[in-house]
Amino acid sequence: MITSADNQKLKQIRKLQTKRERARSGLFVAEGEDLVEAADEAGIEPEYVLVAGDSDYGNRIGVDPQLLADASVLGSGTRIMGVFAQRWIDPSGDLSVYLHGVSDPGNVGTIIRSAHAFADGPVIIGPRCADPYAPKAVRASMGSIFARPPARASFEDLPGTRIAFVAGAPAEYEADAPVVLCFGSERGDHPAGADIEAGIPMRPGLDSLNVAMAATVALYDRFRMARHG
Amino acid sequence: MITSADNQKLKQIRKLQTKRERARSGLFVAEGEDLVEAADEAGIEPEYVLVAGDSDYGNRIGVDPQLLADASVLGSGTRIMGVFAQRWIDPSGDLSVYLHGVSDPGNVGTIIRSAHAFADGPVIIGPRCADPYAPKAVRASMGSIFARPPARASFEDLPGTRIAFVAGAPAEYEADAPVVLCFGSERGDHPAGADIEAGIPMRPGLDSLNVAMAATVALYDRFRMARHG
Repeated sequence: MITSADNQKLKQIRKLQTKRERARSGLFVAEGEDLVEAADEAGIEPEYVLVAGDSDYGNRIGVDPQLLADASVLGSGTRIMGVFAQRWIDPSGDLSVYLHGVSDPGNVGTIIRSAHAFADGPVIIGPRCADPYAPKAVRASMGSIFARPPARASFEDLPGTRIAFVAGAPAEYEADAPVVLCFGSERGDHPAGADIEAGIPMRPGLDSLNVAMAATVALYDRFRMARHG
Repeated sequence: MITSADNQKLKQIRKLQTKRERARSGLFVAEGEDLVEAADEAGIEPEYVLVAGDSDYGNRIGVDPQLLADASVLGSGTRIMGVFAQRWIDPSGDLSVYLHGVSDPGNVGTIIRSAHAFADGPVIIGPRCADPYAPKAVRASMGSIFARPPARASFEDLPGTRIAFVAGAPAEYEADAPVVLCFGSERGDHPAGADIEAGIPMRPGLDSLNVAMAATVALYDRFRMARHG
């Protein structure tokens, strides 16, 4: 059982809170039983797992509960933390999402979850986005980060018709698969040169939603239309 | 200009971070220019507004910028904070939302935004929900809390057909307006006795979304159907 805060694995977990260390090592941390289980369900092996208590077996290593809680970024009472290798895939699928300047990790993780629910392709991370492997993004993905790893590609290289969602643009659009639904920042930082601009229809007097809501609705709409033929 | 941390208004703003003080006083705080503007657009008068700097006029009171930043809960660089009276309305409308055990204030605020976009009725706050006037909920509502105040009612008294959204329930349902879309906690804390159970259709292998995403999709779907007749 690990009983010292100077233990190398505990030190590494604390360092992996920073984007810099995640980029350097290619690793990330998943906190909590739900996420470690989601990895297992997706067939993803951890580098190692730290568990509160003295139960060492396999790649599970027991840690003094207080030391483990101290290493947590997500707060109270974390009993298990897994360290995993980041995976990045190539863009693919009839329906995928491209994010540009989406800087809130909760939004990035939420969109990864919604794409898992409604799309066959990945979430493609463009410039000035939050790291999808940041702790808050991993948590917001509710484990979908394991089943559906993110992708990287430049806007020009996206695989399909690029539909940019912009406040106030027409709600109706026509585009055959493959399509990439593109979302910019709340502050209007959008990629230029989309093939189509579209908007989310809504009641008068309001013209925008949180980016995670907009992406979820747009994904659902494509999914629904494909389902009903 | 306010230059002391012991100023009564600064003290009140700090106290209003707690649910207890919000319940006692019936007030709440909106941080940042966007939210204070949203109040103005909705025709809501603040009790008072604190602004960084020495510009007193009307009910705007200048404050030493560092003291104002110290009173902020939402973090760096807040330049303006308004104190407002909470408003609660009665349930109404052809389409409204009921929340039960939704304890994350960001989710509650996000759902208030989505209801503003897609519904004519309010978000009705049931038991064990986060306070919609908590700072994170107010921010997540993107100002919709001003245009569309929340409501309170017991599940039995909801005004319309109660449709409970439950993971894995059938995606198709039929119900004429008025309807109330009911969402429980992620941990399965649901109200009993709904008229209909429905689910959000999604790809195989996944059965749930974040509650804010589920509510947004369900609201959008009703809005879309009403729009297309």
